[in-house]
Amino acid sequence: MSRPVRLPPTAQAIVRGDRRALARAITAVEDGDASADLLLRSLYARSGNAAVVGLAGPLGVGKSSLVNALVGLLRARQKPVGVVAVDPSSPFSGGSVLGDRIRLERRADDPDVFFRSMASRGAVGGIASTTTDVVRLLEAAGFPTVLVETVGSGQVDVAIREVATTRVVVTAPHLGDEVQTLKAGLFEIADVFCVNKSDLPGADVAERDLAELASLGASRDGWRPTVVRTSATTPSGIEELWSAIEAHEAFRAASGDRAGAERRRLAAEIVDRVRDRLAGEVARALEDDPALARLLDQVVDRALDPRTAADRVLEQRLRAR
Amino acid sequence: MSRPVRLPPTAQAIVRGDRRALARAITAVEDGDASADLLLRSLYARSGNAAVVGLAGPLGVGKSSLVNALVGLLRARQKPVGVVAVDPSSPFSGGSVLGDRIRLERRADDPDVFFRSMASRGAVGGIASTTTDVVRLLEAAGFPTVLVETVGSGQVDVAIREVATTRVVVTAPHLGDEVQTLKAGLFEIADVFCVNKSDLPGADVAERDLAELASLGASRDGWRPTVVRTSATTPSGIEELWSAIEAHEAFRAASGDRAGAERRRLAAEIVDRVRDRLAGEVARALEDDPALARLLDQVVDRALDPRTAADRVLEQRLRAR
Repeated sequence: MSRPVRLPPTAQAIVRGDRRALARAITAVEDGDASADLLLRSLYARSGNAAVVGLAGPLGVGKSSLVNALVGLLRARQKPVGVVAVDPSSPFSGGSVLGDRIRLERRADDPDVFFRSMASRGAVGGIASTTTDVVRLLEAAGFPTVLVETVGSGQVDVAIREVATTRVVVTAPHLGDEVQTLKAGLFEIADVFCVNKSDLPGADVAERDLAELASLGASRDGWRPTVVRTSATTPSGIEELWSAIEAHEAFRAASGDRAGAERRRLAAEIVDRVRDRLAGEVARALEDDPALARLLDQVVDRALDPRTAADRVLEQRLRAR
Repeated sequence: MSRPVRLPPTAQAIVRGDRRALARAITAVEDGDASADLLLRSLYARSGNAAVVGLAGPLGVGKSSLVNALVGLLRARQKPVGVVAVDPSSPFSGGSVLGDRIRLERRADDPDVFFRSMASRGAVGGIASTTTDVVRLLEAAGFPTVLVETVGSGQVDVAIREVATTRVVVTAPHLGDEVQTLKAGLFEIADVFCVNKSDLPGADVAERDLAELASLGASRDGWRPTVVRTSATTPSGIEELWSAIEAHEAFRAASGDRAGAERRRLAAEIVDRVRDRLAGEVARALEDDPALARLLDQVVDRALDPRTAADRVLEQRLRAR
């Protein structure tokens, strides 16, 4: 219906495989540049086909090495692969903590591997939304597999939950109790559990514990999370990990889960976009509209509570239309 | 103007100092119970007067011991104090990871200390909003000081940023690089830096580093973050920490920062409340309205992109009114 007949030149370049155009477009998305909006509208029809594999887990479990090993496996099989690493932002530079330096060293000579490190900038809703858009650009550029790695944990893992089609939760033997609490919330989203650093003592126990947890959480959409042992340095278990990921992707395709989950996610995205624009309107009105500014004065003075103020803003907007 | 002449009975009980009524009200807030809404509307006029001291920082720096030491200091000075500990949720029980067990042991016999542990339930916006409401209840109950402690880091620290009037960022000597990255985002919000466990080697270096960072970030609203060394176990430095907190509270009162920051925060709260209700409306419409459901079908089929769909939802809503 509104599928564009002709793509804008930048979009064409991305689809053609121009990696510089892709990199520039990602920067535009990160910067919230207006040019990104048009580009994403025009390229959306070419998105939604990749296996988007999210890797989440506490710091120190070796996610980056695991991503490198997966990239090695996929390239050995001649498969192009895109990698997005979501870093927590550095508080002062605003840039990513780990920086692009390490990433750019990886396979800079191979056009069928695309690494990109993204700073999270502290904005939670923003990370998931930006990551969604960047993954769409990679899909439009023709990558059949996109790995999304979160560096650190906590808020950046939200991106994994909302963006990935297969979620891998990575752990390692002998994580302290304190690190365990950081994983809270990760267990619920796992399609595949990966015990990395499996050459360390305690891997058996970790695997058994996870298998037990996986059997508890078995009911979700009929998929029972699988548990895989890997060692990214040896390396070992990488093929098994990839097989587990492929099995989950196949399950999604067969079960129709793909369509259902996708529909829910897209509905949520549309609601978010509508909501954000309306919120922008309301925020501006609170500044510009003298009646609303007086309402805020009363709230500051404790003469009116914020809930009642919100009621009145909604009434006023309804009347104004 | 809408300041209630008579408070509902539960609100009266809370104001009177009934701790059971307070505890039940907090549970109602956590559960999103409708009774909490009425209560918060009626008690809002009695909020906004406490020093709300947020303590954030990575796991293992001793925040809980520090909170206990501060409570000890305040009680020695006959000052009532409320404590809210925000825990990351356990993924399976839905309850808090640390549980209320440890907390309830603390000074259960002293009515002028109120400890409450809150599970974060994974909802980011939710944590800050729930914590705001719980702090308001504690203010209405007459606590002149409320300590808000986050257990863990990452998303729960958002609560500190939005709720606290003075933000204390707690660190310890010799945190590994990995833990350092978890602090990203915390530095920007600090009014006071606290190097806890200062009896450990490396405390001098940590203090010097922080003092340097503090001087870099000096410009924020004219306040230059102070650096304090403490040892919660010895204990030492607790009075200095409290003095630094009081100095910041005095600065806020004198500089008018209090009114400005408060106004921005309340404006944001009203916008959030309006936005959430509008988002609820739009989400329901996407399910119930056949025209919008067809729009979503097109997005799922990649015939229409989510941005254009959002445009159309907004147009349609404007026309409908």
